[in-house]
Formats: sequence, C-alpha cells, structure tokens
Amino acid sequence: MLRILLLHGPNLNLLGTREPEIYGAMTLDEINSRLVAFAADHDFMLTAKQSNHEGVLIDYIQEARDWAAGVVINPGGYTHTSVALRDAIAGTSIPTVEVHLSNIHAREEFRHKSLIAPVCMGQISGFGWYGYQIALDALIQRLKQK
Amino acid sequence: MLRILLLHGPNLNLLGTREPEIYGAMTLDEINSRLVAFAADHDFMLTAKQSNHEGVLIDYIQEARDWAAGVVINPGGYTHTSVALRDAIAGTSIPTVEVHLSNIHAREEFRHKSLIAPVCMGQISGFGWYGYQIALDALIQRLKQK
Amino acid sequence: MLRILLLHGPNLNLLGTREPEIYGAMTLDEINSRLVAFAADHDFMLTAKQSNHEGVLIDYIQEARDWAAGVVINPGGYTHTSVALRDAIAGTSIPTVEVHLSNIHAREEFRHKSLIAPVCMGQISGFGWYGYQIALDALIQRLKQK
Amino acid sequence: MLRILLLHGPNLNLLGTREPEIYGAMTLDEINSRLVAFAADHDFMLTAKQSNHEGVLIDYIQEARDWAAGVVINPGGYTHTSVALRDAIAGTSIPTVEVHLSNIHAREEFRHKSLIAPVCMGQISGFGWYGYQIALDALIQRLKQK
Amino acid sequence: MLRILLLHGPNLNLLGTREPEIYGAMTLDEINSRLVAFAADHDFMLTAKQSNHEGVLIDYIQEARDWAAGVVINPGGYTHTSVALRDAIAGTSIPTVEVHLSNIHAREEFRHKSLIAPVCMGQISGFGWYGYQIALDALIQRLKQK
Amino acid sequence: MLRILLLHGPNLNLLGTREPEIYGAMTLDEINSRLVAFAADHDFMLTAKQSNHEGVLIDYIQEARDWAAGVVINPGGYTHTSVALRDAIAGTSIPTVEVHLSNIHAREEFRHKSLIAPVCMGQISGFGWYGYQIALDALIQRLKQK
Amino acid sequence: MLRILLLHGPNLNLLGTREPEIYGAMTLDEINSRLVAFAADHDFMLTAKQSNHEGVLIDYIQEARDWAAGVVINPGGYTHTSVALRDAIAGTSIPTVEVHLSNIHAREEFRHKSLIAPVCMGQISGFGWYGYQIALDALIQRLKQK
Amino acid sequence: MLRILLLHGPNLNLLGTREPEIYGAMTLDEINSRLVAFAADHDFMLTAKQSNHEGVLIDYIQEARDWAAGVVINPGGYTHTSVALRDAIAGTSIPTVEVHLSNIHAREEFRHKSLIAPVCMGQISGFGWYGYQIALDALIQRLKQK
Amino acid sequence: MLRILLLHGPNLNLLGTREPEIYGAMTLDEINSRLVAFAADHDFMLTAKQSNHEGVLIDYIQEARDWAAGVVINPGGYTHTSVALRDAIAGTSIPTVEVHLSNIHAREEFRHKSLIAPVCMGQISGFGWYGYQIALDALIQRLKQK
Amino acid sequence: MLRILLLHGPNLNLLGTREPEIYGAMTLDEINSRLVAFAADHDFMLTAKQSNHEGVLIDYIQEARDWAAGVVINPGGYTHTSVALRDAIAGTSIPTVEVHLSNIHAREEFRHKSLIAPVCMGQISGFGWYGYQIALDALIQRLKQK
Amino acid sequence: MLRILLLHGPNLNLLGTREPEIYGAMTLDEINSRLVAFAADHDFMLTAKQSNHEGVLIDYIQEARDWAAGVVINPGGYTHTSVALRDAIAGTSIPTVEVHLSNIHAREEFRHKSLIAPVCMGQISGFGWYGYQIALDALIQRLKQK
Amino acid sequence: MLRILLLHGPNLNLLGTREPEIYGAMTLDEINSRLVAFAADHDFMLTAKQSNHEGVLIDYIQEARDWAAGVVINPGGYTHTSVALRDAIAGTSIPTVEVHLSNIHAREEFRHKSLIAPVCMGQISGFGWYGYQIALDALIQRLKQK
Repeated sequence: MLRILLLHGPNLNLLGTREPEIYGAMTLDEINSRLVAFAADHDFMLTAKQSNHEGVLIDYIQEARDWAAGVVINPGGYTHTSVALRDAIAGTSIPTVEVHLSNIHAREEFRHKSLIAPVCMGQISGFGWYGYQIALDALIQRLKQK
Repeated sequence: MLRILLLHGPNLNLLGTREPEIYGAMTLDEINSRLVAFAADHDFMLTAKQSNHEGVLIDYIQEARDWAAGVVINPGGYTHTSVALRDAIAGTSIPTVEVHLSNIHAREEFRHKSLIAPVCMGQISGFGWYGYQIALDALIQRLKQK
Repeated sequence: MLRILLLHGPNLNLLGTREPEIYGAMTLDEINSRLVAFAADHDFMLTAKQSNHEGVLIDYIQEARDWAAGVVINPGGYTHTSVALRDAIAGTSIPTVEVHLSNIHAREEFRHKSLIAPVCMGQISGFGWYGYQIALDALIQRLKQK
Repeated sequence: MLRILLLHGPNLNLLGTREPEIYGAMTLDEINSRLVAFAADHDFMLTAKQSNHEGVLIDYIQEARDWAAGVVINPGGYTHTSVALRDAIAGTSIPTVEVHLSNIHAREEFRHKSLIAPVCMGQISGFGWYGYQIALDALIQRLKQK
Repeated sequence: MLRILLLHGPNLNLLGTREPEIYGAMTLDEINSRLVAFAADHDFMLTAKQSNHEGVLIDYIQEARDWAAGVVINPGGYTHTSVALRDAIAGTSIPTVEVHLSNIHAREEFRHKSLIAPVCMGQISGFGWYGYQIALDALIQRLKQK
Repeated sequence: MLRILLLHGPNLNLLGTREPEIYGAMTLDEINSRLVAFAADHDFMLTAKQSNHEGVLIDYIQEARDWAAGVVINPGGYTHTSVALRDAIAGTSIPTVEVHLSNIHAREEFRHKSLIAPVCMGQISGFGWYGYQIALDALIQRLKQK
Repeated sequence: MLRILLLHGPNLNLLGTREPEIYGAMTLDEINSRLVAFAADHDFMLTAKQSNHEGVLIDYIQEARDWAAGVVINPGGYTHTSVALRDAIAGTSIPTVEVHLSNIHAREEFRHKSLIAPVCMGQISGFGWYGYQIALDALIQRLKQK
Repeated sequence: MLRILLLHGPNLNLLGTREPEIYGAMTLDEINSRLVAFAADHDFMLTAKQSNHEGVLIDYIQEARDWAAGVVINPGGYTHTSVALRDAIAGTSIPTVEVHLSNIHAREEFRHKSLIAPVCMGQISGFGWYGYQIALDALIQRLKQK
Repeated sequence: MLRILLLHGPNLNLLGTREPEIYGAMTLDEINSRLVAFAADHDFMLTAKQSNHEGVLIDYIQEARDWAAGVVINPGGYTHTSVALRDAIAGTSIPTVEVHLSNIHAREEFRHKSLIAPVCMGQISGFGWYGYQIALDALIQRLKQK
Repeated sequence: MLRILLLHGPNLNLLGTREPEIYGAMTLDEINSRLVAFAADHDFMLTAKQSNHEGVLIDYIQEARDWAAGVVINPGGYTHTSVALRDAIAGTSIPTVEVHLSNIHAREEFRHKSLIAPVCMGQISGFGWYGYQIALDALIQRLKQK
Repeated sequence: MLRILLLHGPNLNLLGTREPEIYGAMTLDEINSRLVAFAADHDFMLTAKQSNHEGVLIDYIQEARDWAAGVVINPGGYTHTSVALRDAIAGTSIPTVEVHLSNIHAREEFRHKSLIAPVCMGQISGFGWYGYQIALDALIQRLKQK
Repeated sequence: MLRILLLHGPNLNLLGTREPEIYGAMTLDEINSRLVAFAADHDFMLTAKQSNHEGVLIDYIQEARDWAAGVVINPGGYTHTSVALRDAIAGTSIPTVEVHLSNIHAREEFRHKSLIAPVCMGQISGFGWYGYQIALDALIQRLKQK
C-alpha cells in the first residue's frame, strides 16, 4: 500500500481556535481523521505531522524519501520565506502538492508569492479544510497514473 | 437542479494540440464531457463555454447571473491582464473558482500574479485537466453547504 | 446641432444592480436619459453606447470621427490595461473626457494609474452618475469656446 | 445659507501671469468672482482663500470645521508631497473635492500620484478654471442630497 | 504555393489618416497591395487581415494553423498588454515576425517592452510601411531555407 | 532644573476631536498637563508647543538649542516627508525621541518609513497618549545617565 | 495576579558580550531581573524566555495563550523575516509589544521593516535595555485599563 | 544696477554652528557679506534672505519677479521634497542657480535627487561657501550675456 | 556614389566560431562580402569595420561624419551599457540602423533594453546575418527617398 | 592546536544523493574526511557539524566562541533569508568564510544576494566540494598571519 | 608652479559642431585656451586632454598622480556607466571636480545619476563652457587653502 | 604543459599604492610572481596581463582561445558594467574563475552584482591577493580532473 505524508506547518496546530473566520472551525485532528479516511478509501495510507519548526519540517521531508510516495504540504508562514524548505522538496523527487486554507492571493501582498510552489506539482488555495481533500485527490490521481 | 458555468478562456480551444508537454493531450471536448458527467453524478448540471474574446467572456459571466449557482473559470492569458474580467466576476455574487492547467507559479514571472484570484473563492493551479474536476468538487461542496 | 458620443465600457451595463454601495443605484438607461436631456438643454445631441468588448469600444471611437464633436468615456476596467484604446483616442482629434463613477484614486493601487487619461482633456473621478453630467458640462463648455 | 471654502494652494496667486499656456489666462480674482456668483446662484456662500504655506492651508482646513459644509481645494504642488494636508482633510468630516487646472495625469510622472485624493470625494483634473465650477457643481449636488 | 498571413492589430485601419507624422501617409490598402505584390514576386501568396479586437486576432492566428507557412504581425497596442495573443502565437508553430511602424524603443517607456517578441523569430521597429516589406523579406528567406 | 521641549506636529491640536478611534479621546491640553506633571515628578520642566507649520517646527527646534536638554517630538504627517525637519534635529545635538500615537507600522505603506527616526535616539509608536509618557521616561533616564 | 511573557529572540542570550557598543553592556539575566522587579512593583508576574529557534519562539507564544495576559517580545533577526512568528502572534489575542534595543530605523535598510509590528500594539526601538521597561510600562497600563 | 536674490533655505541660519565638519565654519552673515561684495565688484546688487518656511521661500521667489534679474538658491532640505518650490521657480522666468554646500551626490541616497534642479540653469554642489560665489559668477556671466 | 558604414561591435569578429547555435555559422568576412555586394547592387558603397573597443567604435562613428550617408551598427554588448556610444550617434546626423543577430527581446532581461535604439531610425533583432541585409535595405530605401 | 568549525546548513546532509548534477556525487562524510585531513596537514583541527535547523546553526556559532579560531560555513537556503544567522556571526569575532557548492550567481535571482556575506571575510561559490578546501586554505592563511 | 589636469571624455572633441543647442557653439580648443589662460592668471599650469576611450581616460588619471595637484573632469557618457573610472579617481588622492556642460538633472532620467560624483569634491552642471571655468576657480581655491 | 591566463582589469596596476587598507600592500608584480611560482609547482605555466581598457581585456580573452586552458580574471570595475566582457568569456569555452580582492558583497550595493559571474565556473571574493592563489588552485584542480 502506498503511503502519503501530510505535513502541516507553523500555527496549524491551532486550527479551530485561531481566527476561525479566516481558517475555519474544524480542529487539525478532525481534518487529519477525515483525510486518513479519504486516503484509505483510495487504498493509500496517510500519515499526518505538524511542526512549528522550519528545521523539523525539513527533517520530515528528508525522511519521507524512505517511505512516502507523495506529499501534501501546507507550509504556513514558511511559504513566503523558506528557501531551505524549497530546497528540501526539490531535493526529494516525491510529487508534492501545496495547500493553503485561505485564498492567499486575496490577502496581504507578501502572501501572494510562494517560494515553495515552483518545486511542487501545483498549488491549491482558498477552500478551507476541503482544500486538503482535493489536494489528496489530485495527488492520488497522479500516483495512480504512474 | 443547480447549474454551473464552466468557462474556458483564450487558446483553450486548442487543448490537446497546442504544446501538449505543457497543457496535456486531452481535447477540450473530452475534458468537458468528463466534467459534465462528474457534475451530473453530484446532481449538478454543467454548461461549458469557450471564447478567445475578453468581452465575450465578460458577457458570459454577466449572463450567468440569471441561471448559474457557481462558476469554474480558466481565464488563460487574461488572468494576468484583465481588470474588466475581474470586475465582471466581482460584480456578480456567484461563487467562482479559478483553474490553471499548468503550475503558473513555476513559469515566467508575469504569470505568477493573477488579477482574477482576489475575487474568487480560491485558485487551483498545476494539475492538468484534473484540476477542473477538483475545482468542480470544491465548488459543489461549497454550494451544498449553503 | 453638434453631436457627442457617450461611451460606457465593460460592466457598466450592470449599473444599479452591481455593487450599488460602490457604483450607485441608478441604471445605465436612467443615467443616459438624464444626460441626453442635459445635452439637449445645451443644444447638443448625445448618443450613448456601451460594450464589454475592448475592440468594439475602439470601433465606436473610430466611427465617431465621422460624426462626433466630442466624447465622454468611462473605460471601466480597460482604463488601466488598454494601450489600444488609448491609441484609438489619440488617433482621433476629438476632445475626450474620462469619467469614473468611483474615486479610483482611493481604491486598489492598480486602479490609480490610467493609460487613457494622458490622451484626454481631463479626468473626473468619484462623483457617481453625476460625474458624467459635469464631464458633459466641461466638454460642452470647451466645444462652445471653439 | 450653507457655506463652502474654496482653497487655493501654492503659486495659484500667480494665475493669469505664470505659464498661461499651462494654467490659462484668467487671474485668481476673476476665477473667484465667477465661482462666488455660481455658488450664490445655487444658494451657497463661497469664501475663497489662497496660501503658499502648507501650514496655513492646514490651519484653514481646520478652521473650516466651524463653518463650512464643503471644501473645494486645489492643493497645487502640495498634492504630491503633503501627508499633513491629507491628515487635516481626513481629520475633518467635511466633503472635499480636489481640483487641478492642468491634466496632472498627462504631465511629469511625479504629478500623477495625489496624496490628497484618497481622502476626498473625488478628483477633477484638466479643465482649466472651469474645473473649479464643475467641482463646485458636484459638491453642491452632494450637499443638497443630504 | 506557400501562404503567409499579414495581420494588422488595432487602429492600423486608420493608417494614412491618423497621426501621419508618426505613422506615415500611406493607407493600409496601399500597403497591403505593395506587400501582396512583393510576396508574389517571391512566389508566396499573402493574405492581409486587420482587427481592432484582441479575440479576433487570436482567432485569425489559430485559423492560420491550417493554411499559413508564416505570419507577419503588427500587434499595435496589444503588443504591450496581451498575454493571450502571445499564447496564441506560441501555441502555433508558425514562424512569426513582429513589426512596428514607429520606433517603439524611442517612444513612451511602456512601449519599449513587447510581450509578443519573445515568441517571435524577431522584431522590426521604426521603418514605417517599409518595415513590413523587410519583415516579409526576412520571413521568406527563412521559409525558403527550410 | 533641566528643561525638555515637547513638540507636536500638524493636526495634533485636534486631538480628542479628530478620528478618536485612531488617535484617542483625550485633548492635547489634557495630555500636556499630564506630561508636565510627570516631568515635574522627575525634576524636569516640560514646555509643550504645537504647530501645523513645518517651518515653525524647525524654528522651535533651533531655538531649543538655547534651553532644552531633550526633545520629545510627534512630527505628525511631516514624519514621512520632511528632510528639513530631519536636518534641524540632526543640526542640534539635543537627544530627541520620536513618538506616534497610532502604530504607524500597521497603517498605510507610506506611513511605515520615517525620515526623522534615523536622527533620533529612538522611536515609540502605537501606545496612544501614553506613548508620550514612556518617551519622556526614556528621555529622562538617558539625561540622568549623563 | 496577571502574568506577562517576556520573550527574547535569537542572539539576545549574548547580551553584554556581543557588540556592546550597539547592544549595551548589561547581560540578559540582569535585564530580566530588573524587569521582573518592575513588573512585581506593578503587581504583575513576569516570566522571561529566550531562544535562538524560530519554532521554539512560536511554541512559547502558542503556550502563552494558556497563562499570559500580555507579551513583550524582542524578535531579534526574525523581526524582518518571520511570517510564521507574525501569524503566531496574530493567532493569539494577547496584547503584544515589540521592542528593539538599537534604533532599527537608523541601521541597515533591511532592518527598517518589521513583519511583526503590524500585529502588535506598538513598537519601541532604540532605548537599550530600558526599552523593555517602558514596553512593560505601556503594556501594564493597557492591561490595567481593561 | 541689476539685482540678484540670494535665498537660503531651512537650517542655513545655523551655518558655522551646526555640523561644521559637513557645512563649514563660516556663519551665514559672513558668507552673505562676501557675496554682496563679490556682486558689487561685478556691478550687481545682492540681497540675501533666509527662511526655514517653505511657504516663505515661495513668497520670496514670487516677489522677486518684481525686482530680481537672477536668483541663487540653496533650498536645503526642501531640495528633495518641494514640488511647490519648484513650481514657484518655474513660474517666474528669472534665471536661477541651485547651490549646495556639501556634495549631495556623495551623501544619503535620498539627497541625490533634486526636484528643483530641472527648473534651474544648473546645479553646483560640494564646494562649501565658495559654491555660492561660483554660482554668482556663473549667474552674472549669463546675465551679462543677455 | 553614396557610402555606408557597417559597424560591428565587440565579439562579432568571432562570428561563425562562437556559440553558433545563437549567432549562426557564417564568419564576419562572409557576411561583409555579401553586404558589400548587396549595397553595390543598389549603387551604394559599403565599408565594414569591427572593434571590441567602445572608444574605437565612437571614433569610427565620429569619423563617419566626413564620408558616410548612413550607418548600420550592431553594438553587441555595448547596446545595453554605452551612453557614450549613444551620444556619438546622436551627435552625428547620419541615419543609423541598429541590428542584432539574435532576438534580444527573447534573451536575458538585461538584453531587452537598448540605450542605442532611441537615437536610431529603428531596430532589427533576431534574423541572424540576414538582419544586416534587411537593415541595409531599409537604410537605402530611406536614403533614396531624400 | 587551533580549531576550526565547519558548519553545513540545511539539506547538505543529502549531498551525494540530492540533485548530483548540481551539487556533486560525494557524500558529506567523504567531504568532511578530506577536509579534516587537509586541516591536519596544516596543523589545524577541524570539527564538522550539520543541521537543518536555523536555530541550531545559531547555537553552534555561539558555542564556537569558546573554542574555534575560525569558521567555514555553507548556510544553504538560509543564506538568503536569515538575518538571525547573520547577527550570530557578526556577534562573534571569529573570522568566517562563506562557501557555496554551486555558483549561486548563475542560478535564480533570489540566490544572488547573501545576507551572510557582508559579515564574513569573503565568499567562495561554484567549485563543488573543492570550494570547502580552498575556503579552509584561505582561512588558515589568515589565521597564520595573525 | 602647481599643475592641473583638464580631462574631457567621449564626444567632447565634437564641441561646437555637435548639437550646439545643447552643448554650445565654442570648440574644445577655444575652451581649452580660455581655461589655460584663466589658470595661468592664478599661477597654475593647465594641461588639457581628451579621449573617447574609457581606458585612456583611466590611464590619464593614473598618470596624473605623478604631476597633477588637481583634476577637472567632464566624463561625458561615462559619467553614468563607469565604475572603473570612479575607481581610478578614488584610487588617486588628487582633488577632482566633475563638470557637465548641460544640466544633466534636467535631461533623461538615466543622466541624473553620476557614478563619478561621490568620489569628487563636487559637481557642476548646466553652465556650458563657463562651468569649466568656475570648476577651475573652485579647485584652485581649494588648492590654495592647503 | 598547460597554460593559464591571469587577467587583471582596470586600476589593478596600482596595487600596493592605491587604498592599501582595502586592496592590500603587495604590488601587482609581486602577486604575479607568487602566482607564476604556484602554477609552476603544479606544472602549469601562468601568463599575467593587465589593462585599464575594456576592449583590450576582450582582445586578450579572445586571443586566449588559441593557447590557454583556463583563465583567472579580476575584472575590476568592469565586473558590474560590461556585457561585452561577459559575452567574450561566454564566447570562449575556456573555464574561467572570477576573483575580487575585497569582499564585494560587503561594499556598496552596486558592487554586489556581477555581470561576469554567471558565465564563470565560480567567484571568489574577499581574500586579498591570496584569493588569486586559491582561484588558481581551484582552476588547476578542475583542469586536472578532465
């Protein structure tokens, strides 16, 4: 059974409690549960991790080279500032999808630009927790094509 | 039964023939057929239109105010240059999703910025024809929530 | 009797229905009627046209060379993006006044700059439908001076 | 009877003598006379003031809070450089119209941007002395609506 | 016999009447006649079209895929603003030459940059109507080399 | 007894009446009274002045060279535009603290940059009238150190 | 008794040893002691933490949601680069004050801009260790007001 | 006998006392005396004025239209910020020379650009008080040529 | 018989040997021969020169004032950096055509901008050695018109 | 015996496996072994560390103040984004050399600028693993000079 | 007797013949004669040189270290592009004055910035040939002070 | 025996005499001697040249195609301004290393960017004369690998 890494960046552990009008009311655990189930329905095993630490996120991505067939990542605030995270993704050959809960293109100017997107398959932004599910859907479709 | 407008911008009529290494090998008709079926499976009726004309695209969006519950749009080259199209979308209150076949954030600098995205629910970029399907999925999920 | 072309750009056909808090509650027909009357009071004949199509707007301006003594134009979203429209106006020698319903200088950064203004007599921005009337007033004053 | 402040910024005292090909041949007194008459015709009392001093212009605007229902201002060279003047206007709640004799959008790049416009009802630019009259017209129309 | 499409963008239908000090005194028909003859002299058949509509120009380019061996295009004002036109040219594999009557590099800053040039064989700018002829010459030389 | 100049720039005379949601409800006189008392408690004599005139503010700073051991200044709108005020402060050797009532770093882009700050001891921004008091506190601490 | 978090960012553990001409000669422990005492004098309990790790600083801020009524933070080098830290502060509703030992507005250009300041009550910069004390003072004044 | 206005801008009244390592040790009176004598030697009468007020400087320039054949101006800090002063000079037809004591092109970036220079005969920068004398020399040479 | 100067800038002596995939396989001598013949066919005498030295190119242009009726120049790398070369061309009144072998508008950003083009009749870019011939053609057409 | 710290930033632990066409085929351990030997040949003891964590890298640099005479650092992706790392290096007085495996000046624009370089002795870029050795060579030469 | 080098950059050998409306009608020889005489009157010996070659100008400046007490330079087009010339001047310790015939601050944007000025005593611009004389005057005054 | 060209750009002939605090006290001859010896120790023959002339440097590089296996170049001030030099290096296929005596990344902003670096193997900056030796070392290592 192929495995997928779901990686949540900084402050996403606060989901459901922090600025719900922007990020929605579901907690991270609830989202993860739904996505594990969705993956299982498609015969994939999903493992979710979260960290506020840029370095830990890089470690997770490097480790995923040993076991993951694909990655779904919400890099949070590191989206706009982390060349190191970008290099980590580029350094693996694992297909990766970038997700954002809010529509980053409709927020402050500095959130429009992603350093991560150019090394990903694609970017999904603005659909709340459901954005993760369609990201997973797109990733699985790609993995099945191979 | 709720209806959805699927709107393809300039040059998308060439799909399957133009630069297939970037845009994929499926024709626009084939894509539209799949999406009509997908919508039907979810009890929505999908109507697809295409135009190379900015003004015609604006006309379609204005007319959609009379019948559509949602819009999926791939504005093609007008993504980066059309304030008029943006104003048309903002002027309707129909939930709209922006889709791009290729990952625009990984191409030329001038393709990174979308004038359309800030007035849409969200943006999906980089998943080929399948991006339309997940866009539809996300739009339908939103419309069902209401 | 001298004639004047009143030209409305994209989305102005929606006036009175689209974002009334920004653009006001009067419809385009109502505005046109008032302005025709105003012009008539000053012994001018006003003809109003609207299009969402950049090319059609250019056609109208080119045709006006045969019959119009002046032009009042609200280029809508093309204000900020159309070099072609600018060239059309510059290519006629008809005195032209640019009008905007909302105060474009108080909105998004990309609306501050007009490509059209440098080839017009002047620009009026922020006075709702009444802006058309004072534009007409200024144009007529100019035409009478000649 | 409602009162209106007409405020002329730096160098406008030279009107009629300074660069007439840009600014016209009428003197400031002549313009003021016409505008006082125009206002009177519409049952408003107009008081005109001029200063070359940024601080004095701010003083005038602050004092106007006690007596003026509206302001028409040509901020001259301070248009592009005075945050303090902008703050003064924003700090009053008096509807204010910005006027320029020449078409500032057709002159040097640094004249295109107005720091004042975003806190005004609107901006009128390019109609010579007649621009003041249509500004007054628009202001009066607004004041009568209330 | 190989065929070539000669495509004139917005406002070029006014040639000979509009700003002759910039664009020359010959009409578009006269220019087209000379170029048809020039092409015939080199055993090519030239078909000339003009439109003020960005979308129509895109349609023409797409249709040319069925019959044209080469394209000479003067995109007029769309040179600087149309990603859609650029994508249309890039989407065909027809060798294309960009022509401008005036020397765009000696005019306003915003005319220096062409969105079209990077997808063309080359750019010719500043030689009046004769620029079309040398463009045709260069295109024919290329087509004969194949 | 050492003396301190408290200098208020343009529009600060309106405090308590102008945009209280941004600038607070206390009047300038009330603030000055509190600060005079605070200074007295620390054995300093505080003299407060206000002007809307850039030149007058410069005059005050130049005069302060004769009597003041320190300056607390809120340059208002001149913060972002006055090289002359900056030069005046740099030209004295009096320790100076810059204060802003609102958090200028959270407002419009053009308010983020201060021309004055580089020639001051430091900058305090965002604490309403209380910002003056902590500025005074910091200044007094510095003056006592000497 | 209300509690306050005092958070020191990267390299502040070196205080007193690193570039004393810029950052002063007092060690971090000495500063913390003074501030704990100052807080106690005002009936607040201050807890000081330091880390060189962006992620750890984010963890501390998230945890503070359970116990702290206010935060004083010197984000050090992360001031200018950390969107993640900004999001963490914005995600709590705890009033936060930003402090810098040196006057960042008088140093290298890249230090002028703070990503953190827009989500804080205010910013204090340039007063050495004493800046922390007046930050605490301002924070306490705010907390007492509630 | 022809007359010349020598106009000193803000902070120049401090000459000889303020930052002598940048601006030199001579007082403004001493400089003026030397220049009056130099002018007299060449049969010109020089009148010197100074103000810290932008508006007063504008007033002086406007008044000079009645009596001065030429102007030498050191606009101080207003050099870089005053469109109004520029307009005043442009509005007179009096030949004007801009002088700076220090070499503004070797100081902070924001001092390199002069808003005043484009409407002057020329600019002299970097020669201390002697720069005034050579400015006077150049102006007199020009006036004698006429 | 009228004479024309053909001037090749730096590195063009390497033609045929250096990066042939960009610049073509013909040597400079071969190109010159063809062009001399082409000119002769049109009754013009062509003299070709090449230098890697900016100063020598300027010397050649200055000398051409004595004998040349027109200039065709490929300024090579000096295109983007030489104000001195531009001034030399502007200082002669000889009609000049700028040529580039490769399409400079499709290469690195810094090659898009030509300092030379604004002082030339026009610019031709992207047609390999044949670009010289059409440049010559256009120049001769212009010279015959006179 | 003097000691040197060799510090590898994020993703350098992947050397030899990640994008070998850019970064070379040798593993980090192999590189470290060679460099330890090289240092020993010159009577220096080299200690190598690696981390993906910005904070850990800062910790290492701070600790090095107790034992290292020099530092060779490859900051990886933090080169372009870490003010905190820069401050750490500046805060020690240990001579530091910056190394990059690939030629960062020949890659994406955002890699050209180093925030670290201004606080280092110098920068070496583009020589693969051998770049470390010449960095070490240069550092040792400097340390021996003292 | 002290000696001075007068150095003329590219195209200045054309003086009197090239664009006289910008640069004046006097030839370089005539100007040099006047300046030699002026210098002699003040007991200095002036040697004038001109070159169109950047490298030759650098050679002249380097050689001047052996014999010149001061330099007056008009770097022509190299003013805006030559770091090498700047370094040559900075590398000598000879006081140098920069002169421009035309007012470079009133011409094209790219002529406003001088790379040379920051390493000179000062800059004089806009006074035609007389600018050299006042430059000489200022230089001599400086040399006599020593 | 393989040969290497060592090329010194403008002003490097002054080494040891010009600004020794920046560039060091050794003369160019001394440096060259050491490097010739170093090369000989590694069985390479080194030939050193210097010129202040951009064109001569280009000539040297072109000639090196006939005899040199590698190039070490310090382009001096041409580093930042010479597209022609860059093209010359790109036009040869000789491995080239760029060296700077001072750390250009720690100096003025305009020295950070090298036009030369993208066409070199790598760049070494900041190690004084020793930078040449390690550049030679790196070049030789590369040449031996082949």
